[in-house]
Amino acid sequence: MKVRVGLGQINSVVGGMRENVKKMSEVVEKAQRQGVQILTFPELSVCGYPPEDLMLRTDFLKANVEAVQEFARSTVNTGLVLIVGFVDFGNDIYNAAAIIHEGKIRAIYRKSILPNYGAFDEFRYFARGRKPLVIDLAGIRVGITICEDIWVPEGPMGAEVVAGNANLILNISASPFETGKPRMREEMVGVRARDYRVPIIYTNLVGGQDELVFDGHSFVVNHKGEVIARAKGFEEDFLVVDLHLEEAVLAKLHEPRRRQVESFQECEIVSLKVEKNAPSDDVPNRVEMLKGELGDTLDALVLGVRDYVKKNGFSKVVLGLSGGIDSSVTASIATLALGSENVKGVLMPSRYSSKESVDDALELGENLGIQTFVIPIEKAFQAYLETLEEVFTGFPPDVTEENLQARIRGNILMALSNKFGWLVLVPGNKSEMSVGYATLYGDMAGGFAVIKDIYKTAVYKIGRIINTRFPKPVIPENVFKKPPSAELRPGQTDQEKLPPYDVLDSILRMYIDEDKPIEYIVEEGYDEELVKSVIKMVKNSEYKRRQAAPGVKVSSRALGKERRLPITNHYDPK
Amino acid sequence: MKVRVGLGQINSVVGGMRENVKKMSEVVEKAQRQGVQILTFPELSVCGYPPEDLMLRTDFLKANVEAVQEFARSTVNTGLVLIVGFVDFGNDIYNAAAIIHEGKIRAIYRKSILPNYGAFDEFRYFARGRKPLVIDLAGIRVGITICEDIWVPEGPMGAEVVAGNANLILNISASPFETGKPRMREEMVGVRARDYRVPIIYTNLVGGQDELVFDGHSFVVNHKGEVIARAKGFEEDFLVVDLHLEEAVLAKLHEPRRRQVESFQECEIVSLKVEKNAPSDDVPNRVEMLKGELGDTLDALVLGVRDYVKKNGFSKVVLGLSGGIDSSVTASIATLALGSENVKGVLMPSRYSSKESVDDALELGENLGIQTFVIPIEKAFQAYLETLEEVFTGFPPDVTEENLQARIRGNILMALSNKFGWLVLVPGNKSEMSVGYATLYGDMAGGFAVIKDIYKTAVYKIGRIINTRFPKPVIPENVFKKPPSAELRPGQTDQEKLPPYDVLDSILRMYIDEDKPIEYIVEEGYDEELVKSVIKMVKNSEYKRRQAAPGVKVSSRALGKERRLPITNHYDPK
Repeated sequence: MKVRVGLGQINSVVGGMRENVKKMSEVVEKAQRQGVQILTFPELSVCGYPPEDLMLRTDFLKANVEAVQEFARSTVNTGLVLIVGFVDFGNDIYNAAAIIHEGKIRAIYRKSILPNYGAFDEFRYFARGRKPLVIDLAGIRVGITICEDIWVPEGPMGAEVVAGNANLILNISASPFETGKPRMREEMVGVRARDYRVPIIYTNLVGGQDELVFDGHSFVVNHKGEVIARAKGFEEDFLVVDLHLEEAVLAKLHEPRRRQVESFQECEIVSLKVEKNAPSDDVPNRVEMLKGELGDTLDALVLGVRDYVKKNGFSKVVLGLSGGIDSSVTASIATLALGSENVKGVLMPSRYSSKESVDDALELGENLGIQTFVIPIEKAFQAYLETLEEVFTGFPPDVTEENLQARIRGNILMALSNKFGWLVLVPGNKSEMSVGYATLYGDMAGGFAVIKDIYKTAVYKIGRIINTRFPKPVIPENVFKKPPSAELRPGQTDQEKLPPYDVLDSILRMYIDEDKPIEYIVEEGYDEELVKSVIKMVKNSEYKRRQAAPGVKVSSRALGKERRLPITNHYDPK
Repeated sequence: MKVRVGLGQINSVVGGMRENVKKMSEVVEKAQRQGVQILTFPELSVCGYPPEDLMLRTDFLKANVEAVQEFARSTVNTGLVLIVGFVDFGNDIYNAAAIIHEGKIRAIYRKSILPNYGAFDEFRYFARGRKPLVIDLAGIRVGITICEDIWVPEGPMGAEVVAGNANLILNISASPFETGKPRMREEMVGVRARDYRVPIIYTNLVGGQDELVFDGHSFVVNHKGEVIARAKGFEEDFLVVDLHLEEAVLAKLHEPRRRQVESFQECEIVSLKVEKNAPSDDVPNRVEMLKGELGDTLDALVLGVRDYVKKNGFSKVVLGLSGGIDSSVTASIATLALGSENVKGVLMPSRYSSKESVDDALELGENLGIQTFVIPIEKAFQAYLETLEEVFTGFPPDVTEENLQARIRGNILMALSNKFGWLVLVPGNKSEMSVGYATLYGDMAGGFAVIKDIYKTAVYKIGRIINTRFPKPVIPENVFKKPPSAELRPGQTDQEKLPPYDVLDSILRMYIDEDKPIEYIVEEGYDEELVKSVIKMVKNSEYKRRQAAPGVKVSSRALGKERRLPITNHYDPK
């Protein structure tokens, strides 16, 4: 038995039902031209993922259901069987897949395993589906699953194969990017395929949505768990595969698994009369290459910025250029995302700025081909000092005056934003954001923090990769080599207040990303006092992160909605 | 049968296990002196509520368990039966109550109904307990419940009464304040008591924790649902009551209820040998008065500020005084919370400030007895204009220049904060925050936004109540009467950009607090175009709220973690 499946890897936008359905309709046309029989779209493809508290509004839920119905009607004469993600609602609401054929919704599958950790809050909204679903297309028996359903061995897939005789599993996902995750997904899905000797079609969302980047990378594995087709990463794609299916091989499943599967609720089986046969010629299998982890991470940052900017109605961005690695990398990513004509760099030198920094920043701007402005902050700084002179009498200069400089720069960028409609990008990295080595309303000012989830040591590495993505290197060599400094007073370097970044980043990775106790970190060879002082900085800067701009998540513990700590917190780990 | 119960209404701090246990030990001493037999503490009293992602750390969970055990040991010779809230953990973690007697944990009850809506995220952390628990103290049969368990009719209380023969129900809570909620809680608990003909002891947490204020207001209802004792609101209290218990009256429960209850897992019954008898003399029932709703709301704001400031290690606060109602109310609340010596007011007049505003602000400062500073922003404003002159050539003044003034004020307040260690309070109200009529990093700058959940029309009302809380009115009459203005250009008033506040607030209440569709709001008599323009302002300012300071929640839909909307959002309600 042969079946031709199309994977519609689209970039849905949250709340944009009309434009999402339009995108889907364009894919339908392509699918028809290519003789596709089953066409899949990602999880919540109709309304975007995650719609968050929009789902508390009945008018939103209705608009999403109407969009699915309208889409269903529009496909009436295509002969296609379509799998579309939407929010199903009655007494409860469900993360659901509509199975559409001949202009109507023929069946609805409701997601059974709901993620409620990290950046996910699905229990806040959805009730659990309890019924596995198999669609029978004259012997092509398709089990439906949604995202998390397939990440646990206890999911509905087992019942669909065993009780429902499925010989093909579809999974529609909105799986956000994390470094290394594209490969991890394929490995996991490959194991599931081998477990039940059944091919799996994995269709993922693509696009940036606030902190999340969905990377696409949809793929197909055969019943041996081998990847036989793969869509592109970080862009929309349409992948068509031919699968030659066997009858289900249930007899070979051993008894304990059969029992486990039978604990599931009965499998619903819906038969659809599909008359169209698959075209006789096979499509060649297209297997796009996976990039390395850092290359993927860079692509995620680029897509994250592009979609945040464009989906929020901006076209141009502005950021401060200090001549340091963070602003250099951020400006380069913005240029890759939006084109040099849409990126504006602003040098804002002070009495403490070195000639070296100014030169490096100007060179970067020239290499990127972006417009740069030089707006010195001296006059405003002097005005503040005079304004505050009386009330500050008797108090020596301290961090106050340093922060003032950072805040003047923040104000200038925001003024340019207000005047010209440019979105301000924030250049802070994860190391700084973790320990609070950043000025609230100063260098933290802006709408989107591109490298917020990248530790400083990794920023340098990404800088190196960036330099290979342009015809000639854009970030000057000197930027990689000079010691990091905020240049807010004479001779300042980051390492006066912070340990060397390789040490700091190692400690932070264990403490923040892995939740390790102090004891563990010390055993890894780090000085206990140093570890405690780093942890204290992390805790004491919670209030800054609460007011920070969102940024792209690329780790499994990004400093956004994935990490929810109280500001008021008297816990000191021992 | 008589039993004497003590309700330890304490102000636990999140993560402060040592100090929380110390507080509890002080209550134990009081309880002993007063002949108490059963002593209750609030939900998660040992580790504070809500600990959020601290609970993802094993070292935190261990520290919390060790604190309960240490506390248990310290009570070994008291004869008391103690009910203490903590996080129980093994393979899963549970929101739990430890039943302590003779120095040991004798039983553990695990919360069965977990709230996961609004500000609550309990599914993110806790597994559900499945087993009702009754503690048998020689005929005094005490059913244990935790907070949400009692808010639904399907909770464990029914099984405890029916299957466990409980003749007394304890509920330990961390129930955050909302306007009107103290009375609503008593009504709800009263109904539960009548449903099962059993008295209920309701012990609530008190204190501010970031956005939440727990208001205390612990109480006791008899089996007829009548409130027979009530603790104070918004402060720590220790309430002692004598209850004369009957045998359980199960025979009278009709059959359908019995069946519903039996669907619960079997009730665990733990017998403790308690030898001490209740003292023969009855304690008189103390019933503290409930204040009116607005009075309660004001108290919640006062406690919210006090605890945020003190628990975060600050003693003094600073804020800008514009002479308007928002900053006047905020300064007054701060004074009620912290004392006039701990509040600093800063007038930051510009070329557009009216003499009236300056006079009103100075009069307020004088009435409150707080130190005030006058720091004009003209010099800094001029410096920015000159600095930006070249790049702004050909562009007329617009909102950019208005925002610059607001941001200079934000910078000055932050400079004072940096130099003197004062926490900056934000004076924005819910109307402004909803429609984004506020400047990011300007008047939005600061650590805590006191009246963020109070609509403008209610701010005026609270101002009136404030004036009754001082020996003589502190907010000048003129502040109530003049038209609201940001004074960022000549003759500006809020109503140039916004509808009248009574109209705006009504629309916002329906749209934000009640999730009503446009259709409904229009049917209530509001102009459709106006409604749509207000909703558009709400949607387009999501990015500002994401970077806003936390503030006190007093409504059922506060603009903090209770309302989670995407910034990137193409949904336009129709």
